[in-house]
Amino acid sequence: MTATVVPTGEVQLDHGTGAKLSQELIALIVRTLGDVYIGEMEDSAFLSVDTGRIAMTSDSFVADPPFFGNGDIGKIAVCGTVNDLAVAGSRPRYLTLCLIIETGFPLARLVRVLESVRDTAREADVLIVGGDTKVVRSGEADQIYLNTAGVGVFERAPRRMRDVRPGDKVILTGSIGNHTVHLLSIREGLGFETRVLSDCAPLNGLVEAMFAVADDSAIRSIRDVTRGGLSAVLHEYAHTVGRSIRINHDDLPIQHETAMAMDMLGINPIHAANEGCACVFVAPEAESAVLEALRAHHYGRDAVTIGEVTDLPDAKVLLRDASGRDAEVEELQGAELPRLC
Amino acid sequence: MTATVVPTGEVQLDHGTGAKLSQELIALIVRTLGDVYIGEMEDSAFLSVDTGRIAMTSDSFVADPPFFGNGDIGKIAVCGTVNDLAVAGSRPRYLTLCLIIETGFPLARLVRVLESVRDTAREADVLIVGGDTKVVRSGEADQIYLNTAGVGVFERAPRRMRDVRPGDKVILTGSIGNHTVHLLSIREGLGFETRVLSDCAPLNGLVEAMFAVADDSAIRSIRDVTRGGLSAVLHEYAHTVGRSIRINHDDLPIQHETAMAMDMLGINPIHAANEGCACVFVAPEAESAVLEALRAHHYGRDAVTIGEVTDLPDAKVLLRDASGRDAEVEELQGAELPRLC
Repeated sequence: MTATVVPTGEVQLDHGTGAKLSQELIALIVRTLGDVYIGEMEDSAFLSVDTGRIAMTSDSFVADPPFFGNGDIGKIAVCGTVNDLAVAGSRPRYLTLCLIIETGFPLARLVRVLESVRDTAREADVLIVGGDTKVVRSGEADQIYLNTAGVGVFERAPRRMRDVRPGDKVILTGSIGNHTVHLLSIREGLGFETRVLSDCAPLNGLVEAMFAVADDSAIRSIRDVTRGGLSAVLHEYAHTVGRSIRINHDDLPIQHETAMAMDMLGINPIHAANEGCACVFVAPEAESAVLEALRAHHYGRDAVTIGEVTDLPDAKVLLRDASGRDAEVEELQGAELPRLC
Repeated sequence: MTATVVPTGEVQLDHGTGAKLSQELIALIVRTLGDVYIGEMEDSAFLSVDTGRIAMTSDSFVADPPFFGNGDIGKIAVCGTVNDLAVAGSRPRYLTLCLIIETGFPLARLVRVLESVRDTAREADVLIVGGDTKVVRSGEADQIYLNTAGVGVFERAPRRMRDVRPGDKVILTGSIGNHTVHLLSIREGLGFETRVLSDCAPLNGLVEAMFAVADDSAIRSIRDVTRGGLSAVLHEYAHTVGRSIRINHDDLPIQHETAMAMDMLGINPIHAANEGCACVFVAPEAESAVLEALRAHHYGRDAVTIGEVTDLPDAKVLLRDASGRDAEVEELQGAELPRLC
């Protein structure tokens, strides 16, 4: 990690006008991104893709606060897009990076965001191929918003939600709720933020670790559990497949402090946003091999089977308690928790 | 063009949380985009590319005002990315669409933006393959911001800035300054907005029309003239090629009313932003065929040669007046005109 000379000063409106100051800001961005940036300063990047089949995705990121205990909006922006590409079954390759910055945002903080983008891109082995910077007036954005778009290449068949079948096991790759508790704790001053860290992580290595140990077709479908939480993911699958999904309350991986904080906040962890946790649907015969591979990986140590896809045709999400009773998990209208990513 | 039932109501925070209201908003978006949307509601889109060589680009759009006389931010967002792909020499194919919406933004206005996205995508023959919607509180955005990322496929060699040579002719495909005058006139209430319209247009058809009539290598490089105006584009080329570029003041295509408004505003049209105008560098022997092809196209009727690349090594942009005197065009620090795209 090379040290960047940290600039003083703030982002000004003129940094966004396309003239000379814009060029200076772009030079700072390119310099900070270092060798993960391969853009040629052309309007488009020129890329080769081996397989002729690509995955493409894009997300905007408006996380509040943009800096937190073990990460920032730059890390979230790379992980979010890398993970969307990886869970589709593709190998993430190329990212674009667009910034919307509020006038007055300190250049030193911009460099911090860009260093996170650089370090996370390096870890995920993706390249930044281009992007764009817009500057808006005070009160027209909240500090900084990012957008990343990504392209991955398919070396195997794409994974789709509809490929899930009754009998498939549902595995979570990590504990849920931590990202939500960490950010809300900082936002509201609750004091949990040093004990509960965000799970934000690039999951493409974890995904490859699973495919390495299982029959290609045994890993039916994967989804990263972000906004809307586990509940939103399971409801989407239930609707797509037309079958109910049953999970066991006592198997849900939730850290003790996270459960405490959630209780205090009145949030059900099943609805909470995450940034480094995936929900994996596997054929029963692959369950143990996949779990073993996940647990051997540093982002999958808490991996656990939480339930299965039933053949009940009412497309509900059912939560089974310790006594064996099933309750329906409601699909929330809204989660009342904006801007966690 | 099918009529969409215009919804009442406003965008709420819960529209951005990933839960049920989010799904309803996404359904509205997908329904409005109609057949230009081919996303499968998966985390990534699955796409095939014929050639193995792709162009990739992305931009955020923060135009103020988001609605104007002959277009809106939706049209700008599609044109901006389509044009970046086209001027690179690629055929634009796939776009993602991300929205950042301020709470309280009327759903009816959102539908208008999406209809523009749809109509412009249809005209440019590109597909929307996915995207994302974030909702922020009042005062955390100015109405609505868009981001489009795009992928194009190369059926010819990419065009790069460095391929320009001394002796090449510089052609502008249309009049400059109109987009800037139109938006500023609405913003400041100057009264020019009905007489000067934005030039916002997808230029991929125009680019293909040029390649159809010239030797592939005779069209050296193309750039759309957006933020920073013609001056920024010419300075970038001058720096990249290491040669001065000379343009003739009297050949610059500028509408009469635009010149009047610019004069009043104290803006030099050479620094003004455009959204549907490209600067083309061609070998001298291809000049007349390219001009003829451009003028036969509805977006190239005002195409004109404005100058040439010299062999002077000082990498300046020179403006020659009617008496044959050259003055250096300064590279502006900033243009003081934010948020025109």
